[in-house]
Amino acid sequence: MEDIDAIVRTTQEFVRSEVLPIDDEHDGDVAAAGGDDLRVVLQAKAREAGILAPHGPVDCGGLGLSMQERAPVFEAAGYSIFGPMAINVNAPDEGNIHMLDHIASAAQRQRFLLPLVQGEVRSAFAMTEPAPGAGSDPSALATRATKVDGGWVISGRKHFITGADGAGFFIIMARTSGEPGSAGGATMFLSAADAPGLEVGRHLGTMDLGMIGGHCEVLLNEVFVPDHDVLGGVDEGFRYAQVRLGPARMTHVMRWTGAALRAHETAVRYVAEREAFGSCLADLGMVQQMVADNEIDLAATRALLLEACRALDAGGRASKETSIAKTFAAEALHRVVDRATQMCGGLGVTRDLPVAKIARELRPFRIYDGPSEVHRWSIAKRAVRAITAVQA
Amino acid sequence: MEDIDAIVRTTQEFVRSEVLPIDDEHDGDVAAAGGDDLRVVLQAKAREAGILAPHGPVDCGGLGLSMQERAPVFEAAGYSIFGPMAINVNAPDEGNIHMLDHIASAAQRQRFLLPLVQGEVRSAFAMTEPAPGAGSDPSALATRATKVDGGWVISGRKHFITGADGAGFFIIMARTSGEPGSAGGATMFLSAADAPGLEVGRHLGTMDLGMIGGHCEVLLNEVFVPDHDVLGGVDEGFRYAQVRLGPARMTHVMRWTGAALRAHETAVRYVAEREAFGSCLADLGMVQQMVADNEIDLAATRALLLEACRALDAGGRASKETSIAKTFAAEALHRVVDRATQMCGGLGVTRDLPVAKIARELRPFRIYDGPSEVHRWSIAKRAVRAITAVQA
Amino acid sequence: MEDIDAIVRTTQEFVRSEVLPIDDEHDGDVAAAGGDDLRVVLQAKAREAGILAPHGPVDCGGLGLSMQERAPVFEAAGYSIFGPMAINVNAPDEGNIHMLDHIASAAQRQRFLLPLVQGEVRSAFAMTEPAPGAGSDPSALATRATKVDGGWVISGRKHFITGADGAGFFIIMARTSGEPGSAGGATMFLSAADAPGLEVGRHLGTMDLGMIGGHCEVLLNEVFVPDHDVLGGVDEGFRYAQVRLGPARMTHVMRWTGAALRAHETAVRYVAEREAFGSCLADLGMVQQMVADNEIDLAATRALLLEACRALDAGGRASKETSIAKTFAAEALHRVVDRATQMCGGLGVTRDLPVAKIARELRPFRIYDGPSEVHRWSIAKRAVRAITAVQA
Amino acid sequence: MEDIDAIVRTTQEFVRSEVLPIDDEHDGDVAAAGGDDLRVVLQAKAREAGILAPHGPVDCGGLGLSMQERAPVFEAAGYSIFGPMAINVNAPDEGNIHMLDHIASAAQRQRFLLPLVQGEVRSAFAMTEPAPGAGSDPSALATRATKVDGGWVISGRKHFITGADGAGFFIIMARTSGEPGSAGGATMFLSAADAPGLEVGRHLGTMDLGMIGGHCEVLLNEVFVPDHDVLGGVDEGFRYAQVRLGPARMTHVMRWTGAALRAHETAVRYVAEREAFGSCLADLGMVQQMVADNEIDLAATRALLLEACRALDAGGRASKETSIAKTFAAEALHRVVDRATQMCGGLGVTRDLPVAKIARELRPFRIYDGPSEVHRWSIAKRAVRAITAVQA
Repeated sequence: MEDIDAIVRTTQEFVRSEVLPIDDEHDGDVAAAGGDDLRVVLQAKAREAGILAPHGPVDCGGLGLSMQERAPVFEAAGYSIFGPMAINVNAPDEGNIHMLDHIASAAQRQRFLLPLVQGEVRSAFAMTEPAPGAGSDPSALATRATKVDGGWVISGRKHFITGADGAGFFIIMARTSGEPGSAGGATMFLSAADAPGLEVGRHLGTMDLGMIGGHCEVLLNEVFVPDHDVLGGVDEGFRYAQVRLGPARMTHVMRWTGAALRAHETAVRYVAEREAFGSCLADLGMVQQMVADNEIDLAATRALLLEACRALDAGGRASKETSIAKTFAAEALHRVVDRATQMCGGLGVTRDLPVAKIARELRPFRIYDGPSEVHRWSIAKRAVRAITAVQA
Repeated sequence: MEDIDAIVRTTQEFVRSEVLPIDDEHDGDVAAAGGDDLRVVLQAKAREAGILAPHGPVDCGGLGLSMQERAPVFEAAGYSIFGPMAINVNAPDEGNIHMLDHIASAAQRQRFLLPLVQGEVRSAFAMTEPAPGAGSDPSALATRATKVDGGWVISGRKHFITGADGAGFFIIMARTSGEPGSAGGATMFLSAADAPGLEVGRHLGTMDLGMIGGHCEVLLNEVFVPDHDVLGGVDEGFRYAQVRLGPARMTHVMRWTGAALRAHETAVRYVAEREAFGSCLADLGMVQQMVADNEIDLAATRALLLEACRALDAGGRASKETSIAKTFAAEALHRVVDRATQMCGGLGVTRDLPVAKIARELRPFRIYDGPSEVHRWSIAKRAVRAITAVQA
Repeated sequence: MEDIDAIVRTTQEFVRSEVLPIDDEHDGDVAAAGGDDLRVVLQAKAREAGILAPHGPVDCGGLGLSMQERAPVFEAAGYSIFGPMAINVNAPDEGNIHMLDHIASAAQRQRFLLPLVQGEVRSAFAMTEPAPGAGSDPSALATRATKVDGGWVISGRKHFITGADGAGFFIIMARTSGEPGSAGGATMFLSAADAPGLEVGRHLGTMDLGMIGGHCEVLLNEVFVPDHDVLGGVDEGFRYAQVRLGPARMTHVMRWTGAALRAHETAVRYVAEREAFGSCLADLGMVQQMVADNEIDLAATRALLLEACRALDAGGRASKETSIAKTFAAEALHRVVDRATQMCGGLGVTRDLPVAKIARELRPFRIYDGPSEVHRWSIAKRAVRAITAVQA
Repeated sequence: MEDIDAIVRTTQEFVRSEVLPIDDEHDGDVAAAGGDDLRVVLQAKAREAGILAPHGPVDCGGLGLSMQERAPVFEAAGYSIFGPMAINVNAPDEGNIHMLDHIASAAQRQRFLLPLVQGEVRSAFAMTEPAPGAGSDPSALATRATKVDGGWVISGRKHFITGADGAGFFIIMARTSGEPGSAGGATMFLSAADAPGLEVGRHLGTMDLGMIGGHCEVLLNEVFVPDHDVLGGVDEGFRYAQVRLGPARMTHVMRWTGAALRAHETAVRYVAEREAFGSCLADLGMVQQMVADNEIDLAATRALLLEACRALDAGGRASKETSIAKTFAAEALHRVVDRATQMCGGLGVTRDLPVAKIARELRPFRIYDGPSEVHRWSIAKRAVRAITAVQA
């Protein structure tokens, strides 16, 4: 645990000295700040500081942290919009590292996982599709892979593919049995970005600007994937997606907790200095209520996160725990940043403080990785089953 | 009333055909869309359609609508971010027209009010100051006007001056007696934008991009204002500010109701078309709850607005009614747009739909024109006085 | 309007001097306070004061007030839990008077409506049934009336029949065509309470104790109703129920606004007198926030109520307006009373103040007369239809 | 941990078979159900089942559970309103046991603690005073103890003294130095209930009916306490009160979580069985949202509780953690029960289901043990200090 504390402290210092100034100068717009050029520079410094890929497997050069150990480190990184990229714990690479570590073959591990952990390449996870394909409802998966000699041919359309622009390789989820709307079977495929037929389309103009490579459309026009680049078992894709999603949700929560914390601390410092109506703002009851509610929301987010991490570290799927923690966190952290904005008054909606930027980046989290409504639906279904199974 | 209905319909048609396409093409960024060049083009079309300055006094070419009559017209204009500018009912001009109509001398009416109503010029209202000056607490007013021969000399610093960049003239509020923190006296001054010593500084980089002329810093370095450009009585400024604020708050509510309505209608159309989990989204209970809550929030906003407009039209200050309506509306309309975002899923946070843009423009309204906390404070003080004055 | 003001003032004075002391002595428990004996005494005094049945038709001795005119009068009555009973504007009599006034025959008017308006008798409205019968979903109506010579024979089971215990007559809603679950047809029947086969069963032990006659089960075992006691047309019952429900919802809102106002005023007086942490509680920001939020909720409730009353007075069904006003009011008034409880601290949950009592009486209003969820469902359905009907 | 699981299971079974039937028969009114007679009977059964006083020190016959271990046991007890009394973990005895275990002398331990753990006697904690004495603000303590030969003489007035009626002894907090409003010093005194001058006054008529001995006024008229019944050090009372309060708050949370869980499970079973509008209620989205929000609120309550228990078990005062957990829990559990009421429709506000009863018992928890507003104030003060202490 002392080790973790040291990693956290190093990460905090690194983020404050190396990352925040660039983040603030460019208002959290990663493309404007240099994109992959910036990433390479920052990751080199993180490597030097010994904090690159703290979650990566040890044999690939990572620190091999458990989920519980990641929590404070990722939160420290998330304090800057560019922090997670800087230490290589950004989505989707972070989740892809997790999944590859669990199911990649030895050869795939060498070709795909190793350079990913070391920051030599970025990756993307091509699952989500435009309507009527797979969005919140994965069973609607429409992209199809057809078996041919020596491999598979994939065709379909993806969108909201985070980090696609500039990614070195893609993990593509495609239907290998059944029809859209049926459960059927899906499979994960590995493909270099320059594979013929794979085309990164337009960036969706999302309000968030901090994810390197953006959120893009990806067109798959008869992309050939050789058998040895099938990731894991054929028709096991839906299960793998679930395995990836639980931890991926939790690391999102870790990172966004850091961002929300920065907004909160900014606001608290502001109200502690600013006077109005003859008082320091921090002494006014309505302001204190916002400060306290932020503290409560942050504490509850972390407490739920840790429960979920414990369950994941214990080897469970933890679908209930991660759904609850994700749903609560996305809404609670949004409230934290909204109150921080309000506490900062007029300055809270300008670039002079980092609060509006954080609000802009955070808003989509209530939709990305499963909208709150879909999580609530699955939480409720599970609860009704569990409670009615027990005799009253 | 038939007349009003006709004006509303004309405004709706005008906004949809002439304004929305430009708004959407430029994602509500008025500078990117052409700034004053765009304004001139759109106002010419509005003039032709007979809906320019519907609130302006009749002798200046306006339609002379009462507050109650303005409500549906301004809402129709607010359906587009650029709509209020197009028909010349934008802040701060709209509030300045209102104030000038009440207190300008005949000569001032000719020189300042007439061209403002006719869209020949824009104006700004220079009241707010950076800390520790007048923000939420007007009594902190620090800008000072000193009497000299034939006029006044004003020095001070203002910020968040909406529309300053490109304004033809300013209404400047400055202290003419007392000290910051005391009530003392303030006076309103009229000054051409090119007066020596008046300098428009940097734009505050606000999240909202739809207000023409932005929100700027304004430096006043010994600006001379001749006696005949004093607006109303000396030392009457605090009272005039209150007179201006009540109606100005309500017209904000009108415009933002239109914007929120567009977000709501966009979302309802989206959920009515989109399918998931085997249903149309509009048939899912959690979606219906969001639709219903939006309807309730919109209805309550309009009902409170109309109560306040009635009170204003009856000649009252209506401080209670306008504070309540403004506070409720700013929060309710924010909820409407936030739910609309959520209903639209991933597309809700992109430029593909107008929802994220409206959310961005609307957020500051909970802070501008008095943060909710300051309004609540004054509502509570008034309620305690009123209730304890009556014998239990 | 002066007349109305005078009626309001008289009602306020009457409630404070004659009703509140008894209400408080018995903690709002009408049975403990004397039940119908109390009612007779109080109604005699109200008659003397000229405020009995202000909504009753003039030819029956009422004041014939419109919906808009009723609002402030009923609110004044609702200031005490027993106030509406005292001036004879309690549910269900009030709604029954409304319905009888619209559809009773001349003979029915004489036999049923006249004594009801004059307080000589109470009535009940027997619509709701235990599962799987008609609850929130009226089409599930299971009580059946069968045509026989000279009349109808009704059998079925009702529950939550307000005022049943001690009612002089019942309006019974029974299916006269179709099957439960189908729309089919229902009919309204008038029946004296002592009709053979009509049995008032147990009181449901509801948390609210203020409704005279309680909320009871009613068993209908081959109750004969002669043809001349059919109320309105055969198979028109569903339509009549809707006609009754809109105004009945709004008068509930009026009465509960009065009750919530009393809780609010009690709390404001408490915080204005009580000191802690060196301040008067009313000067603390978190308390001011509660005071302000109560003022906002009360103002919005009244504003929505008036919109709905205007629509009803104009002759419309006003389903949208009354659904919105009822749903908002039930939740907003609950918040008002909950905040009032919180402001009063420990005393707020005791009988020493009337706040806990009001909370107990008010809670069911979010369920009675259509739970919020059912209203939201219908508000959403209507909104989706309206918005998608218009071309985008 | 297996041991704890076994204790939890035994407690669950005991509560369901022995306690719930009596609780439900008497609608949670402990006086109506037999008061101390009932307590003696149930505690004898709990003793037999080996689950009496699981938190009591082992040398007194308790099971010596840590805070973390208590959490699931107390939650299981709290499933019935009478459950905590039945296994002797009720407030205020439970907190008094905790405090006596920490600071009682050996003789006091024998005379007061031992019989308390074994259920031979009940106790009360006399701290709270009517205005202007010690309520939320302990420094206002007005009850005064004066040194005399061989002991102290105490005079003052207390109220909201839980369990006073029938208590065998009191822990009295009185000022031994300084003046009301100053910090000064307070001391804890032990006194038999039959000490001359100690008089239990009226019960405050609180809405909750489940606490044995009620919430009473206590008059102290020159009550003599010998020196050997001073509890702990003179002038150490404020510190001891804090030591008692942290854990006492958390055990309240444990118990109320059990009560809220029962309401939730009752509602889930109801919606899983009840049909309307052609669906099982549990399949309707708005119902699912309530089910999910309850699950989230319960999970977050437990997660925050465990964080606080960990901090307490580690030996800290844990003021921040317990304030946050108490504030969140009191509000979250209230929401859980309110949603449960709503889910059960009409039956939810009757005695036919246990939900309304639980709502009535739970409401005061947002006020007892520090109103949410006071906790928020202290959370905010602490946060501002902590954040501004660090260099930005």
